[in-house]
Amino acid sequence: LRTGLPEVIYAAGKTPAQTAEIFSRMAATGVAVLATRATSETFEAVHTLTPEATYHPIARAITHGSALTTQGKIAVLSAGTSDLPVAEEAAVTAELFGVRVTRITDVGVAGVHRLLAHRDTLSNADAIIVCAGMEGALPSVVGGLVGVPVIAVPTSVGYGASFAGAAALLGMLNSCSPNVTVVNIDNGFGAAYTATLIAHAAHR
Amino acid sequence: LRTGLPEVIYAAGKTPAQTAEIFSRMAATGVAVLATRATSETFEAVHTLTPEATYHPIARAITHGSALTTQGKIAVLSAGTSDLPVAEEAAVTAELFGVRVTRITDVGVAGVHRLLAHRDTLSNADAIIVCAGMEGALPSVVGGLVGVPVIAVPTSVGYGASFAGAAALLGMLNSCSPNVTVVNIDNGFGAAYTATLIAHAAHR
Amino acid sequence: LRTGLPEVIYAAGKTPAQTAEIFSRMAATGVAVLATRATSETFEAVHTLTPEATYHPIARAITHGSALTTQGKIAVLSAGTSDLPVAEEAAVTAELFGVRVTRITDVGVAGVHRLLAHRDTLSNADAIIVCAGMEGALPSVVGGLVGVPVIAVPTSVGYGASFAGAAALLGMLNSCSPNVTVVNIDNGFGAAYTATLIAHAAHR
Amino acid sequence: LRTGLPEVIYAAGKTPAQTAEIFSRMAATGVAVLATRATSETFEAVHTLTPEATYHPIARAITHGSALTTQGKIAVLSAGTSDLPVAEEAAVTAELFGVRVTRITDVGVAGVHRLLAHRDTLSNADAIIVCAGMEGALPSVVGGLVGVPVIAVPTSVGYGASFAGAAALLGMLNSCSPNVTVVNIDNGFGAAYTATLIAHAAHR
Amino acid sequence: LRTGLPEVIYAAGKTPAQTAEIFSRMAATGVAVLATRATSETFEAVHTLTPEATYHPIARAITHGSALTTQGKIAVLSAGTSDLPVAEEAAVTAELFGVRVTRITDVGVAGVHRLLAHRDTLSNADAIIVCAGMEGALPSVVGGLVGVPVIAVPTSVGYGASFAGAAALLGMLNSCSPNVTVVNIDNGFGAAYTATLIAHAAHR
Amino acid sequence: LRTGLPEVIYAAGKTPAQTAEIFSRMAATGVAVLATRATSETFEAVHTLTPEATYHPIARAITHGSALTTQGKIAVLSAGTSDLPVAEEAAVTAELFGVRVTRITDVGVAGVHRLLAHRDTLSNADAIIVCAGMEGALPSVVGGLVGVPVIAVPTSVGYGASFAGAAALLGMLNSCSPNVTVVNIDNGFGAAYTATLIAHAAHR
Amino acid sequence: LRTGLPEVIYAAGKTPAQTAEIFSRMAATGVAVLATRATSETFEAVHTLTPEATYHPIARAITHGSALTTQGKIAVLSAGTSDLPVAEEAAVTAELFGVRVTRITDVGVAGVHRLLAHRDTLSNADAIIVCAGMEGALPSVVGGLVGVPVIAVPTSVGYGASFAGAAALLGMLNSCSPNVTVVNIDNGFGAAYTATLIAHAAHR
Amino acid sequence: LRTGLPEVIYAAGKTPAQTAEIFSRMAATGVAVLATRATSETFEAVHTLTPEATYHPIARAITHGSALTTQGKIAVLSAGTSDLPVAEEAAVTAELFGVRVTRITDVGVAGVHRLLAHRDTLSNADAIIVCAGMEGALPSVVGGLVGVPVIAVPTSVGYGASFAGAAALLGMLNSCSPNVTVVNIDNGFGAAYTATLIAHAAHR
Ligand SMILES: Nc1ncnc2c1ncn2[C@@H]1O[C@H](COP(=O)(O)O)[C@@H](O)[C@H]1O
Ligand SMILES: Nc1ncnc2c1ncn2[C@@H]1O[C@H](COP(=O)(O)O)[C@@H](O)[C@H]1O
Ligand SMILES: Nc1ncnc2c1ncn2[C@@H]1O[C@H](COP(=O)(O)O)[C@@H](O)[C@H]1O
Ligand SMILES: Nc1ncnc2c1ncn2[C@@H]1O[C@H](COP(=O)(O)O)[C@@H](O)[C@H]1O
Ligand SMILES: [Mg+2]
Ligand SMILES: [Mg+2]
Ligand SMILES: [Mg+2]
Ligand SMILES: [Mg+2]
Ligand SMILES: [Mg+2]
Ligand SMILES: [Mg+2]
Ligand SMILES: [Mg+2]
Ligand SMILES: [Mg+2]
Repeated sequence: LRTGLPEVIYAAGKTPAQTAEIFSRMAATGVAVLATRATSETFEAVHTLTPEATYHPIARAITHGSALTTQGKIAVLSAGTSDLPVAEEAAVTAELFGVRVTRITDVGVAGVHRLLAHRDTLSNADAIIVCAGMEGALPSVVGGLVGVPVIAVPTSVGYGASFAGAAALLGMLNSCSPNVTVVNIDNGFGAAYTATLIAHAAHR
Repeated sequence: LRTGLPEVIYAAGKTPAQTAEIFSRMAATGVAVLATRATSETFEAVHTLTPEATYHPIARAITHGSALTTQGKIAVLSAGTSDLPVAEEAAVTAELFGVRVTRITDVGVAGVHRLLAHRDTLSNADAIIVCAGMEGALPSVVGGLVGVPVIAVPTSVGYGASFAGAAALLGMLNSCSPNVTVVNIDNGFGAAYTATLIAHAAHR
Repeated sequence: LRTGLPEVIYAAGKTPAQTAEIFSRMAATGVAVLATRATSETFEAVHTLTPEATYHPIARAITHGSALTTQGKIAVLSAGTSDLPVAEEAAVTAELFGVRVTRITDVGVAGVHRLLAHRDTLSNADAIIVCAGMEGALPSVVGGLVGVPVIAVPTSVGYGASFAGAAALLGMLNSCSPNVTVVNIDNGFGAAYTATLIAHAAHR
Repeated sequence: LRTGLPEVIYAAGKTPAQTAEIFSRMAATGVAVLATRATSETFEAVHTLTPEATYHPIARAITHGSALTTQGKIAVLSAGTSDLPVAEEAAVTAELFGVRVTRITDVGVAGVHRLLAHRDTLSNADAIIVCAGMEGALPSVVGGLVGVPVIAVPTSVGYGASFAGAAALLGMLNSCSPNVTVVNIDNGFGAAYTATLIAHAAHR
Repeated sequence: LRTGLPEVIYAAGKTPAQTAEIFSRMAATGVAVLATRATSETFEAVHTLTPEATYHPIARAITHGSALTTQGKIAVLSAGTSDLPVAEEAAVTAELFGVRVTRITDVGVAGVHRLLAHRDTLSNADAIIVCAGMEGALPSVVGGLVGVPVIAVPTSVGYGASFAGAAALLGMLNSCSPNVTVVNIDNGFGAAYTATLIAHAAHR
Repeated sequence: LRTGLPEVIYAAGKTPAQTAEIFSRMAATGVAVLATRATSETFEAVHTLTPEATYHPIARAITHGSALTTQGKIAVLSAGTSDLPVAEEAAVTAELFGVRVTRITDVGVAGVHRLLAHRDTLSNADAIIVCAGMEGALPSVVGGLVGVPVIAVPTSVGYGASFAGAAALLGMLNSCSPNVTVVNIDNGFGAAYTATLIAHAAHR
Repeated sequence: LRTGLPEVIYAAGKTPAQTAEIFSRMAATGVAVLATRATSETFEAVHTLTPEATYHPIARAITHGSALTTQGKIAVLSAGTSDLPVAEEAAVTAELFGVRVTRITDVGVAGVHRLLAHRDTLSNADAIIVCAGMEGALPSVVGGLVGVPVIAVPTSVGYGASFAGAAALLGMLNSCSPNVTVVNIDNGFGAAYTATLIAHAAHR
Repeated sequence: LRTGLPEVIYAAGKTPAQTAEIFSRMAATGVAVLATRATSETFEAVHTLTPEATYHPIARAITHGSALTTQGKIAVLSAGTSDLPVAEEAAVTAELFGVRVTRITDVGVAGVHRLLAHRDTLSNADAIIVCAGMEGALPSVVGGLVGVPVIAVPTSVGYGASFAGAAALLGMLNSCSPNVTVVNIDNGFGAAYTATLIAHAAHR
């Protein structure tokens, strides 16, 4: 029997045993469970106590169960290959919370025509999550294309003057597109949480 | 006859004459017009060319016309008196774009019971805008109270280690409430724009 | 025979052998001894020379002996699980220096009602130590609840724009509660030292 | 008839008229009132409505009334002449809240013998407030001399790499004296508030 | 008779009289002369001594004489109206040094289709200068469209987390388009100097 | 048969297997291929699938094939031994893209006469790449010697207040030589890409 | 009658009246007196009380009296015109403290041959003070030319990414010439003080 | 036969084999040789090729030979145990370059009386090197005690808001003692080099 909202565990800074114990206790209550920032070692420990748990290696996430109902749809964009873990954390989170997700990858601003090809998908989304590192310019371009809330996720991808995502973060905060809001560096989970609230409200 | 979406002018860095000229040209097309960051000198210039324009002195905004329809409701919170200009910029923007706004003022985290008294209003909003300077802690507390998207606006209020709003910005980006997203320091306009999109979609 | 104040060793940057040697020399004089930032390897070395020494693994502290007298009481709060090592460093220090400690855990600002449940304990403390990472908002809320000195300890818990505790530090320095003072990131020891001075003076 | 605790107004960012109106309203209730960061223009406006109010020009503070009782004593130190406004804000605050204050000026670390001459006064204080800009080294030296809580107030005094007080702030946070806690740059008021709580508790 | 390369005066931090004196001395030698960062007061002083000098008010530049020959062509792009002074400093400099300049304005990334309309002009330029503040994303998009050297000029346009151009600077340094190099914030002059070298070499 | 421009793979953050697979797929199309930031493990994987690939260990680069034609010449300077990997990344890239490269090493500004000995080579280059860490002063000196575009590459070489290349980056951005433009810290590839465009255009 | 060492007043942050009063009191004791960071208004006030005082307008310094004896010689270099106030503050200080000063101006690193012409003067100095803003590269070049202590003074000259002298400061701290030490931004006085100690000791 | 000045190798970022090869080549010329930042692995490699080389493990330095003559004397102070490696790098360097060194350890500012006990030694030194991390306050106190050039070396000792030595660096740059100059974080070598120049000149 499934009831209520998913529970979420932030596995970074917990031992595999700690995460596994919390995970199985929550799963036993019948809710869906999500663990983010989980290594494969952590998944092994979780799997031993909760055999039906699933590991999403790119997202570094463990899920158990599924959404009670699915309402609304979002798009999750990533600029480059290295942004995929953050984008997948967002996508896996949104799906578990009950939103349909369209993934659009490799649409960095240096090749803007690849992005323009997805304009229809973007216009039809209830919310758009954009994950990008380095200069973090993608959310502005996306925000300028469609009248949909854009949640920008700076990633720690880059080197040198990227300062571990700070350059992308600043770029996104200064976006000239007014429909862009921003979450912490690498915070795919938080972006998906807010996108879910927006999408659900639009279909209530 | 009114048609289409409001037009917006960012008056900072424009002369009063420039803003007045752009404003009157836009107003002539029949859309609602908003000028943000407008001084009273700028308003005088605008008023000469567009006598029906209204000045909102706390918000430092000039408006002309009104929304075609009003759908949905948001709450705009401010922590202290000095955060009011940013909160008013958000409120005036949202109202012109067609959203009902409840203003809740003086609910800083050092007096958390004043905030708790507004819990029902907060739960019923489609989106909540929270303007706070200094330590920027208010969005986290609000985000923990209700399952509604919270758009956090750090303000440049404070001194010393507030570093002109950077402390509040960092605090909001690190919020432990997953329903918080963030815009640029003092960007009441941007927060209202996204809040409007969310509220309209929820009532479409 | 026990005499005088505890001696303190900062074990980070010392070899286990160095710490063990200093520790045993001090313990031989009859004072209580505290080593902070001690790994389990360091404890093994200490234990060999000073078999009665005790390891506090969460606090990463080693103690030997106890306070001559215990006067006054403080509360040590932590926002989340990851803040526990810092909170325990504070608690173990205060206890060894002769103060009664009430530990209050998992009272982050995103769930403000859990905090409010402890209001009486907070009001009766001589001083309150608040350990929090991420946005560092907890000291402001606590400081607003009670008229007691609050010593805020930012922790290096977080990622991305937490910048290893700098976001929490800035938040705490900008606290709008006037009874909040701040120590270095992760400095549970320093917070406890000052809290001890306050508590002892209140009961002299 | 005097009742209750002083009320405090932060006059920066308020018009003289606003501050004067709040001030007179509070004074009418019989409590002592303090306005910090008040210019002489603000004082003129306050004085018109509340003729018995007193201006403290160095502290840039306005007071009305006095403490109900005075308990305990603190020392307020300043390193150089330019730190005096912050030190006076602290001293005036503490006196209004009911603490005896000894002012010790011009005891910068480049002349450590001048400081040593005050050792007895420092040892007998319930708490010590140390205001210093530039390298912010004074609290560490004071903290090493006496076993009393030291509240360090970095000031924005300096130029170049002082970065408007940030250098002093960082120095104080890294103090090697464990009895040092820190408040925001130029926050003499906050330091005095906490010092008052400590001094009152020591004499209750 | 005209000979040799233009001479350049950086008028910021010089008095009008100083700039005028240097300007007239240089003009007397027969070379073209450029003064950057010149106020209208400075122009008045220059004009008195050198009546043929021309003031470019948007660029805040004074020129005298003209290029000996004109070779090659560059495009100077600006994202928004507030970036125009920097773009004009670049354009005026390049023209005086002997390059044909096409100005393309108001092509910020939030309206990428306006930029795409200029693709042919961009492809045919010997070098492209892109001036943008806020998130600084425009150079990446331009660099991805054409195989031409792009010189990115971050501008100090913006507020809050733009940190006076630092956000745009970081964005440009992290550009994912490999044909982008960067100069100092607001340095239209330096960008034009390098663009001139490139354009001249391409037509030698 | 060789056709078209080289393809480039950024191997950092890709597994050896991923890089090897992409590399062999690209090489099969007949274009030249470059992989930057490649470890020797990555080269082993590439070598297995593409036996003709060459490893450049100092540059940490893998190449396959060669330029269709070689046009123009650049100089690549490095200040010290530790800057060699970045300089070699630049040199290997430029050679593969079809430019003649003169390497000039160990010409740090503390021994300016060693640099002056190379003045002729510098004057004859189409573009100059200057790689330097620590204080990053070399590009200014080079830029002052010759009228050639200088592309400055700050390196992460240094310790303490070099802040991983930030000091060198800031120095280069503030160069008083107007022919200096700058790329990201350690970005030898990007510098070579732009230098190639300049050199090719000069010989078209 | 002249006795003892000069006294020094830092006039910034003092009123003209305060500086004048301190100045005349010190001058009355017979020692030489130096006031730094003094405006012409301050000089007027000083001059009224101490008619023999001299104003050095570029250095913004007031002196009275002269050194008892003059021993040793230093060179004071400045990179550009805007660095002159700092260089003159250093030169005036050293002369008053009794050292012969050779001023060398306009020897920025973009024209290294102008610097090389002064090599003999530099080799014969007891210490060299180098004032430079922007990239701050000059001390490294000077330090590499001669085996003499070089005291580097970063100046706040520049714009954009000079960050008010921080770029020059970082460059100087990372100097690859081991005979370079650094003082605070714009601190010509401090550089001269140490240079004087060195020069005097070399001739004792 | 010994001739000329010592040669110096910066071993960080060189392989043991590289350092050993350079070391033996230099040693063969008869000069003294110093390698700084050398691990014990590097020493093993050096020792194989140059058996008479000596390892200084705390300083992490390798020396060979000795100064031709020894002139002058300096003091090397360290605030805490963790500052010893930097202090020893300075001491070993100065001794090899021919200066007598007095080491004074454990004189942090929190125990100022321990420092005062060394006043005579300090007054008699030709130059004083002060190594301190955390708040970096020691150079100011030392500089205030004696009229001798003080070279301040910030160390990367500390945690949290020490930001790897940046707090100490800023403190030292803002020293209120005018005889303090500063070198890079952890740069014991550079401090000793300049101190040697000063001491030698004083005894020439
Ligand atoms: N100088 C100051 N620095 C920081 N906080 C202050 C200062 N003066 C007053 N406050 C705080 O500001 C509050 C009043 O703010 P307001 O209602 O805006 O006047 C008081 O309760 C104090 O806690
Ligand atoms: N806007 C500018 N930004 C940066 N450098 C400039 C600018 N204008 C002129 N310069 C440089 O400053 C030099 C002239 O400086 P000055 O001798 O101080 O007038 C010229 O040779 C240019 O290289
Ligand atoms: N060392 C480097 N630094 C910056 N960008 C690079 C580097 N090497 C390759 N690139 C860029 O990265 C792109 C390939 O990225 P990817 O598809 O992730 O392998 C290429 O088109 C280059 O523009
Ligand atoms: N610990 C150190 N910190 C800074 N510079 C150093 C250090 N050790 C050696 N050096 C400098 O590095 C130079 C040698 O560098 P290298 O040729 O790379 O071994 C010497 O001439 C010294 O000036
Ligand atoms: Mg969030
Ligand atoms: Mg926005
Ligand atoms: Mg402390
Ligand atoms: Mg406080
Ligand atoms: Mg340039
Ligand atoms: Mg590039
Ligand atoms: Mg100094
Ligand atoms: Mg040095």
